[in-house]
Amino acid sequence: MVSKVHVHIEKMPKLRNPVMVCGLPDSGNVAKLVIDQLVKQLKAEKFADIYSSSLPPRVLIRQDGTGEVMKHSMFFCTNDNGRHIVLYTGDAQPANPEAAYALADKALEIGQSLSVDTVLTVGAYITGQFANEPKVFGTGTDKELLKELEAMGVSLISEGSITWMNGLLVGLSKLRNMKAVFLSGETSGYIVDARAARAVLLVLSQKLGIPIDLAELDQKAKDSENLVKSMEAMQGRAEKDEIGYIG
Amino acid sequence: MVSKVHVHIEKMPKLRNPVMVCGLPDSGNVAKLVIDQLVKQLKAEKFADIYSSSLPPRVLIRQDGTGEVMKHSMFFCTNDNGRHIVLYTGDAQPANPEAAYALADKALEIGQSLSVDTVLTVGAYITGQFANEPKVFGTGTDKELLKELEAMGVSLISEGSITWMNGLLVGLSKLRNMKAVFLSGETSGYIVDARAARAVLLVLSQKLGIPIDLAELDQKAKDSENLVKSMEAMQGRAEKDEIGYIG
Amino acid sequence: MVSKVHVHIEKMPKLRNPVMVCGLPDSGNVAKLVIDQLVKQLKAEKFADIYSSSLPPRVLIRQDGTGEVMKHSMFFCTNDNGRHIVLYTGDAQPANPEAAYALADKALEIGQSLSVDTVLTVGAYITGQFANEPKVFGTGTDKELLKELEAMGVSLISEGSITWMNGLLVGLSKLRNMKAVFLSGETSGYIVDARAARAVLLVLSQKLGIPIDLAELDQKAKDSENLVKSMEAMQGRAEKDEIGYIG
Amino acid sequence: MVSKVHVHIEKMPKLRNPVMVCGLPDSGNVAKLVIDQLVKQLKAEKFADIYSSSLPPRVLIRQDGTGEVMKHSMFFCTNDNGRHIVLYTGDAQPANPEAAYALADKALEIGQSLSVDTVLTVGAYITGQFANEPKVFGTGTDKELLKELEAMGVSLISEGSITWMNGLLVGLSKLRNMKAVFLSGETSGYIVDARAARAVLLVLSQKLGIPIDLAELDQKAKDSENLVKSMEAMQGRAEKDEIGYIG
Repeated sequence: MVSKVHVHIEKMPKLRNPVMVCGLPDSGNVAKLVIDQLVKQLKAEKFADIYSSSLPPRVLIRQDGTGEVMKHSMFFCTNDNGRHIVLYTGDAQPANPEAAYALADKALEIGQSLSVDTVLTVGAYITGQFANEPKVFGTGTDKELLKELEAMGVSLISEGSITWMNGLLVGLSKLRNMKAVFLSGETSGYIVDARAARAVLLVLSQKLGIPIDLAELDQKAKDSENLVKSMEAMQGRAEKDEIGYIG
Repeated sequence: MVSKVHVHIEKMPKLRNPVMVCGLPDSGNVAKLVIDQLVKQLKAEKFADIYSSSLPPRVLIRQDGTGEVMKHSMFFCTNDNGRHIVLYTGDAQPANPEAAYALADKALEIGQSLSVDTVLTVGAYITGQFANEPKVFGTGTDKELLKELEAMGVSLISEGSITWMNGLLVGLSKLRNMKAVFLSGETSGYIVDARAARAVLLVLSQKLGIPIDLAELDQKAKDSENLVKSMEAMQGRAEKDEIGYIG
Repeated sequence: MVSKVHVHIEKMPKLRNPVMVCGLPDSGNVAKLVIDQLVKQLKAEKFADIYSSSLPPRVLIRQDGTGEVMKHSMFFCTNDNGRHIVLYTGDAQPANPEAAYALADKALEIGQSLSVDTVLTVGAYITGQFANEPKVFGTGTDKELLKELEAMGVSLISEGSITWMNGLLVGLSKLRNMKAVFLSGETSGYIVDARAARAVLLVLSQKLGIPIDLAELDQKAKDSENLVKSMEAMQGRAEKDEIGYIG
Repeated sequence: MVSKVHVHIEKMPKLRNPVMVCGLPDSGNVAKLVIDQLVKQLKAEKFADIYSSSLPPRVLIRQDGTGEVMKHSMFFCTNDNGRHIVLYTGDAQPANPEAAYALADKALEIGQSLSVDTVLTVGAYITGQFANEPKVFGTGTDKELLKELEAMGVSLISEGSITWMNGLLVGLSKLRNMKAVFLSGETSGYIVDARAARAVLLVLSQKLGIPIDLAELDQKAKDSENLVKSMEAMQGRAEKDEIGYIG
């Protein structure tokens, strides 16, 4: 079968010195939470829908009761310092490597046609553990960028790999001679983790020079935290029960 | 590999204001039961066979002992109010997303070339529970359609998703500027459920303005019901046994 | 990925009224045993190698120590009544439906270019049971052929399906307006079953008007039979042991 | 989806009578260890990067903290007798047969364009057992080569198969009328096995007429050996424990 990628663009925006921020659904849904939050807060305007026959063959039912086939979307907005921001996210990642490459490359191609020269991709850094203060881990395509990340309190990654589209968006940027950075929020991978998303947003806020209202995400992060605590409590009780049982 | 879709059409029919009703094999076989019943009752005439190398590589042996490769088919018939109906079903769904998109889009392309502007897709609404009175749940591509559905006693869906071709036929209709509705009969998903098919046919009968003889399906539905009862009875006994054991 | 099919033909033979006999590896290896035996006995000459990038990515090491990539092959020979026979088999079936369709269709295309109008495909009829006298079960693309099969003592199949290439060779023959028959030897599916292959060869011998020396296959069939007996004996002992244990 | 293979070559080298040595990641990582060691010792120069959308969709983070998409690479160097050597390895094997064929064939195409007429492929010979003195097993595309291998103390393989790219590189060489040999180091398949890599390098050293400094690999081999011993010791203790438990 041939995967078809269809791009629907009503009107291509004209942008000033844009930076592109990408995040496709991943473990803990960190990436999508971050981009959805940015779209909402920055009142970003959608200019592109990207359809692919390698996305899960599925119609999502929206809250108003109407259904729509799964897709990816691109948005744009201005930040206060006059630099445009392009945002890229979607309903799901595709099911095979070839389509992951094709979609990541298509999004970068659109970005590049808008004069994007720097790509920030966000995601999850999965530890299997609940962290008290989730850190932000990062990597990039050149050493200049790594220094910049460190200066913002990001911990550099020196081994391992970044999988699927959030990784490919970084790697394929390099092949297109664009600078790219990957920012990942520490998460257990077990829950939808607003705390990890919050940590990533704080770094983005600094990097992009945009104020970010964390109130909403703080509430979600609090919910995440309570969920973690109650899971830990259950585990604690379980351990006590075990002790009781042994004793 | 490249999935090939071959369409065999002897003679393209000329239709008046046609509506298209689709249902590909799904859980509980609800969709196929509905379309097979319509083909039979409305004495629909086959005009297209659609072959795909992404359907299961399998020859089905028909009751007369001859074998035929798996395929999809399209039929047409007139209803009493003079409006033509196009019916679409098949032996199986394909094994990969790309082919599901390709086949759904090919069927819609044929429908659109016949001037179809409304697509009704039927399927299963899986609950994992046996319902006493299976409801019909629905969604659609615009809010007008949702109102119409509600007026016919259909419960609107406001979250979740519709998978594979029965979902894609709705989602891709929208991209082709056709109106589309999904009607799903409540079913456990555990058995071939003629009761769910019967419930969907009742709504279709109203929507399409066609009389539907439910005798045959009533018999099948009765068989389904008896099967459900005996399964519940077994479960009941099992529970009693457990009680007995505990007591 | 795109599956590539490469056909290597040194010199296309000129054949008289040829019939084509096909069998790709299946359960119990019945199909391959049959074609290998025919190639050997009829001193068939290879005229085509068919390579596909969807066959398992594997080099087979031949008995002389050299290695060769997996492939399919076509052979031809004359039988005593002056009719040519084309034989088709291979090292393995491909891993995906699209390639199974492509390879089956390519072999039929080559056959048709040699004026083949009848295709006999052989395979296994899996019962999960060890049969004392394995029967031959059959189906075909039209009712004339079914009568002919019955006259030769073949039991007609009236439900179920024939999977992968041995099925597709029958189904796709019909779409090419060639007559096709499927002959399957009854087998448990658990062992390489020379007895099932032997039963199919007897029917082929009659249908093709060729004498078949069953000595070699009789020996293999005897080995199969002994294997079955010892498996049954083990099962018997196991059952006795269980009885002893309970008692 | 369509797998895309992109070759990045800055400047095609001009080589004298080159031989090509290939090894893609396999069980025990034998193949990659061998080629990495050759690249390092022979100070080989990279001239080609090969990207494929069928490689795992993954960015590898290098030790310096920068990330890069997975790829294959080709190198060249001269050996003392004036013959050039082309080396081919990569980060991973692709996920589907079609891409394995495409990548192997692309590497051979590049090799052939550089006048390579002999291809040596290395890999693992998996036994599931820890060998005291790992042997080297081999096969080739013609009998001349087999004699040569035997003369170098290589044990010929006379059954079985070589899977994925290390097999295809041999099989597809034959179809391109290139000579090819497969050399595999005996390994359990359970650990990264430098001892098997060392054994293969010794044969290569003889065949290519190059001195190979085994110091580094000896150290790694020693580590492998210690790992094997401690695993055996654990197994021994486990067996003793079992005896103790039974007694």
